[in-house]
Amino acid sequence: MIILGIDPGTATTGYGLIKVPDDILGREFDYGIELITYGNISTSKDHLAQDRLLQIHRELKGVIAKYKPELIVIELLFFGANTRTAIAVGQARGVIMLAAAEYRVPIHEYTGPQVKLMVAGSGRADKNQVHDGVRKFLGTPGRRKNKLKVNWKGGHLDDATDALAIAICHVLKLAAK
Amino acid sequence: MIILGIDPGTATTGYGLIKVPDDILGREFDYGIELITYGNISTSKDHLAQDRLLQIHRELKGVIAKYKPELIVIELLFFGANTRTAIAVGQARGVIMLAAAEYRVPIHEYTGPQVKLMVAGSGRADKNQVHDGVRKFLGTPGRRKNKLKVNWKGGHLDDATDALAIAICHVLKLAAK
Repeated sequence: MIILGIDPGTATTGYGLIKVPDDILGREFDYGIELITYGNISTSKDHLAQDRLLQIHRELKGVIAKYKPELIVIELLFFGANTRTAIAVGQARGVIMLAAAEYRVPIHEYTGPQVKLMVAGSGRADKNQVHDGVRKFLGTPGRRKNKLKVNWKGGHLDDATDALAIAICHVLKLAAK
Repeated sequence: MIILGIDPGTATTGYGLIKVPDDILGREFDYGIELITYGNISTSKDHLAQDRLLQIHRELKGVIAKYKPELIVIELLFFGANTRTAIAVGQARGVIMLAAAEYRVPIHEYTGPQVKLMVAGSGRADKNQVHDGVRKFLGTPGRRKNKLKVNWKGGHLDDATDALAIAICHVLKLAAK
């Protein structure tokens, strides 16, 4: 099963694609997660908001068409964000959810603290701990070909890493069901 | 010039189309606003959020394709809304802005208080005062064919009326520029 994780935003929408075995239910230590790809859809602040949304929608549809995920997992904004941020993230979420609906791919959602708890062991884990968790789940021995080739602490791939964390969070839920 | 006003929401997105004279600049009492049509895109709460967004996007694209507005005016959520509401409205705004971008129609935005001030004379006007303002601008003598045929206080057309108020707000701004 191919799962697409998405960390939505108008400036940067991170995405990460992983493949998990069909017999994921009941797995506990080796989840057999394979990394397919990951990246960012970055839009320019010099462009109008509607054109940035158009770019996110088009590029994400390209990703869905190419990799044909069976599930999309999106980060759900936690409460307490200010109205401006929530509106901006909501707008990006809108075109992402639309792309999912157009390809008839089901959506699952988790909040940041849920993802942190599942991937890094604590709902208050910091970014580095979450990224370490992502590496742990993707870079297990014997799966060296899946090893991430970037410096995770480099910064610009933060959103893609968060997207992978969201996808992994859903795998752990699937395994535990 | 044809202007499409939109009051965005996941459950109900109201829209209203008006036509204004090209010599709108400098007009003060008779703005010559003609009502073209108005309505609601209503989605079922029994449907998934992504399918509701798909419906809003499709129906709104139908309205744009049919009436070819030169401008789209959307209500901008005022600050202080809670995160859940802001996300939901943002998602609806996302697919609406996408439809505008797909048809290359420019977007203008006003907050609720701005619309109330322009259409009803006070930023704190209540719904009835705003609806009275809409009637005043659309139902002037000699323009009986434009008279609204519904009971504005009936309730279910509230969102469409708000959408007309947003469009009228922009006309008043254009006239005063």
